[in-house]
Amino acid sequence: MAQNSARIPGRHALHIPGPSPLPDRILRAMDTPIIDHRGPEFAKLARKCLDGIKTIFKTTNPVIIYTATGTGAWEASLVNTLSPGDKVLMVETGQFATQWKNMAIKLGLSPEFIKTDWRIGADPAVLEARLKEDKKHEIKAVCVLHNETATGCLSPIAEIRKAIDRAGHPALFMVDTISSLASADYRHDEWGVDVTVGGSQKGLMLPPGMSFNAVSDKALAASKTSKMTKSFWAWDEMITMNKQGFFPYTPATQMLHGMSVAIDMLHEEGLDNVFARHNRLAEGTRRAIKAWGLDIICRDPKYHSPTITAVIMPDGHDGDAFRALALENFNIAYGSSFGPFAGKMFRIGHLGDINETAMIGGLGATEMALAMARVPHKKGGVQAAMDYFVSTRSSSAQVAAE
Amino acid sequence: MAQNSARIPGRHALHIPGPSPLPDRILRAMDTPIIDHRGPEFAKLARKCLDGIKTIFKTTNPVIIYTATGTGAWEASLVNTLSPGDKVLMVETGQFATQWKNMAIKLGLSPEFIKTDWRIGADPAVLEARLKEDKKHEIKAVCVLHNETATGCLSPIAEIRKAIDRAGHPALFMVDTISSLASADYRHDEWGVDVTVGGSQKGLMLPPGMSFNAVSDKALAASKTSKMTKSFWAWDEMITMNKQGFFPYTPATQMLHGMSVAIDMLHEEGLDNVFARHNRLAEGTRRAIKAWGLDIICRDPKYHSPTITAVIMPDGHDGDAFRALALENFNIAYGSSFGPFAGKMFRIGHLGDINETAMIGGLGATEMALAMARVPHKKGGVQAAMDYFVSTRSSSAQVAAE
Amino acid sequence: MAQNSARIPGRHALHIPGPSPLPDRILRAMDTPIIDHRGPEFAKLARKCLDGIKTIFKTTNPVIIYTATGTGAWEASLVNTLSPGDKVLMVETGQFATQWKNMAIKLGLSPEFIKTDWRIGADPAVLEARLKEDKKHEIKAVCVLHNETATGCLSPIAEIRKAIDRAGHPALFMVDTISSLASADYRHDEWGVDVTVGGSQKGLMLPPGMSFNAVSDKALAASKTSKMTKSFWAWDEMITMNKQGFFPYTPATQMLHGMSVAIDMLHEEGLDNVFARHNRLAEGTRRAIKAWGLDIICRDPKYHSPTITAVIMPDGHDGDAFRALALENFNIAYGSSFGPFAGKMFRIGHLGDINETAMIGGLGATEMALAMARVPHKKGGVQAAMDYFVSTRSSSAQVAAE
Amino acid sequence: MAQNSARIPGRHALHIPGPSPLPDRILRAMDTPIIDHRGPEFAKLARKCLDGIKTIFKTTNPVIIYTATGTGAWEASLVNTLSPGDKVLMVETGQFATQWKNMAIKLGLSPEFIKTDWRIGADPAVLEARLKEDKKHEIKAVCVLHNETATGCLSPIAEIRKAIDRAGHPALFMVDTISSLASADYRHDEWGVDVTVGGSQKGLMLPPGMSFNAVSDKALAASKTSKMTKSFWAWDEMITMNKQGFFPYTPATQMLHGMSVAIDMLHEEGLDNVFARHNRLAEGTRRAIKAWGLDIICRDPKYHSPTITAVIMPDGHDGDAFRALALENFNIAYGSSFGPFAGKMFRIGHLGDINETAMIGGLGATEMALAMARVPHKKGGVQAAMDYFVSTRSSSAQVAAE
Repeated sequence: MAQNSARIPGRHALHIPGPSPLPDRILRAMDTPIIDHRGPEFAKLARKCLDGIKTIFKTTNPVIIYTATGTGAWEASLVNTLSPGDKVLMVETGQFATQWKNMAIKLGLSPEFIKTDWRIGADPAVLEARLKEDKKHEIKAVCVLHNETATGCLSPIAEIRKAIDRAGHPALFMVDTISSLASADYRHDEWGVDVTVGGSQKGLMLPPGMSFNAVSDKALAASKTSKMTKSFWAWDEMITMNKQGFFPYTPATQMLHGMSVAIDMLHEEGLDNVFARHNRLAEGTRRAIKAWGLDIICRDPKYHSPTITAVIMPDGHDGDAFRALALENFNIAYGSSFGPFAGKMFRIGHLGDINETAMIGGLGATEMALAMARVPHKKGGVQAAMDYFVSTRSSSAQVAAE
Repeated sequence: MAQNSARIPGRHALHIPGPSPLPDRILRAMDTPIIDHRGPEFAKLARKCLDGIKTIFKTTNPVIIYTATGTGAWEASLVNTLSPGDKVLMVETGQFATQWKNMAIKLGLSPEFIKTDWRIGADPAVLEARLKEDKKHEIKAVCVLHNETATGCLSPIAEIRKAIDRAGHPALFMVDTISSLASADYRHDEWGVDVTVGGSQKGLMLPPGMSFNAVSDKALAASKTSKMTKSFWAWDEMITMNKQGFFPYTPATQMLHGMSVAIDMLHEEGLDNVFARHNRLAEGTRRAIKAWGLDIICRDPKYHSPTITAVIMPDGHDGDAFRALALENFNIAYGSSFGPFAGKMFRIGHLGDINETAMIGGLGATEMALAMARVPHKKGGVQAAMDYFVSTRSSSAQVAAE
Repeated sequence: MAQNSARIPGRHALHIPGPSPLPDRILRAMDTPIIDHRGPEFAKLARKCLDGIKTIFKTTNPVIIYTATGTGAWEASLVNTLSPGDKVLMVETGQFATQWKNMAIKLGLSPEFIKTDWRIGADPAVLEARLKEDKKHEIKAVCVLHNETATGCLSPIAEIRKAIDRAGHPALFMVDTISSLASADYRHDEWGVDVTVGGSQKGLMLPPGMSFNAVSDKALAASKTSKMTKSFWAWDEMITMNKQGFFPYTPATQMLHGMSVAIDMLHEEGLDNVFARHNRLAEGTRRAIKAWGLDIICRDPKYHSPTITAVIMPDGHDGDAFRALALENFNIAYGSSFGPFAGKMFRIGHLGDINETAMIGGLGATEMALAMARVPHKKGGVQAAMDYFVSTRSSSAQVAAE
Repeated sequence: MAQNSARIPGRHALHIPGPSPLPDRILRAMDTPIIDHRGPEFAKLARKCLDGIKTIFKTTNPVIIYTATGTGAWEASLVNTLSPGDKVLMVETGQFATQWKNMAIKLGLSPEFIKTDWRIGADPAVLEARLKEDKKHEIKAVCVLHNETATGCLSPIAEIRKAIDRAGHPALFMVDTISSLASADYRHDEWGVDVTVGGSQKGLMLPPGMSFNAVSDKALAASKTSKMTKSFWAWDEMITMNKQGFFPYTPATQMLHGMSVAIDMLHEEGLDNVFARHNRLAEGTRRAIKAWGLDIICRDPKYHSPTITAVIMPDGHDGDAFRALALENFNIAYGSSFGPFAGKMFRIGHLGDINETAMIGGLGATEMALAMARVPHKKGGVQAAMDYFVSTRSSSAQVAAE
């Protein structure tokens, strides 16, 4: 028992919505002496990463790698393309969308924030309508989170692109994929995104400390006329130096060692397999929650997130107290709650290098913790998830056998 | 699906009956440069290990540390105390008892092997009866496995000690604790064991490659008159050198770095907590198996093992095929089968640094694999384990609250 | 020989002017699973780092920790305290001072760049004279590099503080300590510095990817009226969240694990011992170079750097070709050259976790490479360094003995 | 200074005669979770090691891998091939030869020990003469150390083979290569050795804990009639199980992970390059010692060891005191002294993954420590080594250029 022991036994079950569990292979790649960031070995490593990361964003254009967290890459997307006072259209999908909007304000932009129920993602029709109203094309950019980390709602990026096109609007399209990249299907070029913001610590299975801007030609053109002041985040010097395999400043070499392996691992599994696995784990999680008789934040299946599921606590039960009990008894960590749902939910992360076995362990800990915390619920959640996992395994096994 | 991917995602779930999963803290302690095995830093490390390991065996006498596997420590126990042709009484609890017996033959001893159903442990009454018959005290040693790794049957060492005493027999008492040490209650001194054989790779949470002989004064006395030839395994030079904190040959320094941390971890959790945790995981596992309608090898609850449970496959279902399917689909490894049960069972390890969350993951993988393999079984095993885990957590929580 | 082998044997000798060699103890601390950056264990770690880093800067005020490279902390120092168009006084000590100046221009400030011979540091008298001229106090900040990484010249920060005071000028005093922090004596509070910029990858012995702003009350006050746009770099939200042991965004947890150990290591050795060691290694290096008959960039001993020494190549010998030859034959890396000295020098780093033994190895490789490259020089450099190291060891040994 | 600091800075310079410094690449390979030692991944790993190790011994016959130190492999060589009371001819080259001889006595064999000056290796002529006298072929085995670790004398194995052949003697030929394997040219098959004993912790660059027996057909034949009792060391079961890629007991899986990489590294460099490098480092070391005016144990150049050089301390100076001073001041470890030379020498290891740069560092620390300890010597040792290293590099560079 935890109460009379200085040590909680067993491996920590990390089910926060990122950073995701670090695979040993990546940790080992990072556990290496420093190399000269201006030497030949480094240039080789950098080139592998700079080329490889394009295959993850599915772009043939440059991807800028920042030694900074995802928040930094948010800032980079705005300051490289816009000018002071520019109007940007953003959608209030949740806490992180709100933070991006607040950042835009701090940076001297004029965000218009489309009020949205936190329990769904961005609605293409609403965006289309608003853009159509903007006859003068005052809106310079549309900013959407692919996956709202705070709620577990996934927005339909390809459809939003079509909505912008239908509105005939020239605004730049910027998408945050921090909690979806390398977990959910994403196609920077094909979907016509101008700036995609990504981070290292979720689907890429790396620690936090690195983030990305994938850029379209249109975004690059916009960067030539952008009037926002910038230096650290400026794309131009980065892109120039990157061509030689170097960076304008000392980059996080350990992270690049890890990134090189992460990209290998994703392609060894196959990106489509990676996406299918995340969808399978997410559906299993949702079935477990439904079987418990509990509700999830995302109220419309078309917005279901493959990486995060936020569980609503029944009235009178505090999400944070529940998380603390689960941590102490079952060595499991969930994501916390924000804004209107503060204390009223907890978030289960099912992203990165996890599989059905670990997921059943995590859902099992949740079901046991619900019982210990006397949260009203029905048994059978883990059973429902197992039944689902078996059904998907068996059918694909059949397909393979045919 | 594994079939079109070069990588099985997620962390490997190691549920073999040892080696047990290596905690990161131990791996990190071992991931360190070599130090001079004749220098001051080494002497400090060696002393910590030599003293600390005594607290695990619960002895105040020396514990000899071999840079060799457990098999080596078996040999050491015999060659240090006996003489060619000596009669030793052994009990056929399973595959590993058989191997120890075969070793005794190879070494020129005369083992008498008490035929025992592999589905139970050693019976004190049988031993007592046999020793009583040995009026001339021709039997020089009684050798028993505390935990038979091949079957998951735990033998009652304290009771066997009493049986030997009741028989008034002077034979040395030798016990193999390879798959029970630091997982099940064990008391070398209090239980009057003369030589305890142990290994690094199970309850001690270390890699394989180190093994032990804990010795009584009686065993040390016997070693003075032993006529077996020996050099590498000889206790005398080891004990002499160990007093200075050194070894007669270059020991496995990395293993000692890990061992130092392993001993700390066991005491931080508290040995009694460690034993209680293993018992809890074992009972949860047995309840899952029972709920599935399957049977386990150990047919008498008094021999239930806290570290290993061997599951009998229904007729017509091969244990090894099942293990392969589970490995491929759920990245889980179980122990294989031996002797009369070859192909007819698989063994679930629940030992070392694991907790309820990991155990539910492992049992979940098992239940899903049973379904995929179409092994006849009822659902509800994982549920039964969860119910049991919750009940033990809750009651202890109540106790703590009172 | 390298020419017929796919592997250069032996450990890489990293003598670039940072990142410095990672001690194993730090690498091991970083080689650890991810923990929840909003959980209790993280809060404890963050507090240890946030408190500990103050002892390195020698300040009782907050130190802001950025998940970004040192370049980012440069930007942070400017955007938090100044307003568009503000005049800042900077000193052209070398390449990195030039980059900071260029950054100021990019950010919309008006830097005045005091032309300085790259072969010395910043001259307090020149700064004093310039500030005295500024009767209207148009200069809002004075920005100086403590150690110019490009040249190995150390500027006298305490004296510059006095010069500012003598001029009676209210400008903020900002100091870059990226390549001096935790290697050379530095006292943020005592020396009256307003913003100190630091990085992880030099004296702190961490990988690149983390940087710092130590701030005075005056700087904090300035930040309330600063008109520069900022979000990621803004101090206010950071300071507020840090009080609870958290960060406004996901920080680089692995770096914090390493930083916690780095701070311990520096205090175990003792900061004064750390500084004395760097001075000793630097003087040994300079004596070796002098014995070779070569010259160093820093032409005035009062500016000698304890962390980096830049060696001037004789005419007709290219620094980069020399570096490549040394790397291929002796597995050693030096720093490259910049600006007016491009190709005309190479820089030897002697900072971080190194000692006399490694330094002699590094200088030995240099002397051997000079011979192989047929660079005109005299033998005896390594001997001169050894003689010096012995003399300092012996005298301190005597002192200790008395 | 060490005297007022709790930490000796800088990386430890490990110059003991083994274990040799662990390359990071090997440490990382070993820093990995446990895998099932009866599973498919293990079988692949084991096969790679079992095949690869043959290329290091240069044999096409099986090499038995023991999870035990080199001492264990000594024992294995004797107990698998001989019978109680058998006469074996051994040569007193030093401490380790003496220990092997003592082991033979303990195991019930009758070693005849050819008295030899510890300052040379085994003399083929002496062996030939003795074997010729043995008309009845009572001598069953000739046992020689390729490299005597205690003195740094290398014996000419190929010549000894010829001497045995000239004597027309059928004795088995057993050679200990613990401190020469993968550092000095060695050819098990070509040189007609019957049992070669090897260890992991020297030229193989692994930690201690694994050892080897390479065996000839003649040795295998002898093992069929050997009457020594054995179990753990028995070849037969090992060879049988190894054919399937498994071991009769749980082997040290982490060591096998490391071994797989070590074999790769040796072949990437090229074995001949590895041998040349060791010879070069050894000659540089000897030149340094000679320049200091000191003497080495090995008094005849034809026995010079490529891996270890033992330095004789001038009268009145204690080797162990010197080692302690060097450790405290320069963080360097040397090998200790034995037998007739106890306290009168120290041994410099120059084996495994080291290069000229590290060697100059180590020799520099030695020269500085000699000065601090006031051991009478001339300066110039490091210079002599550097001159030699440059000369070998330059000539080979020329050769490559032609």
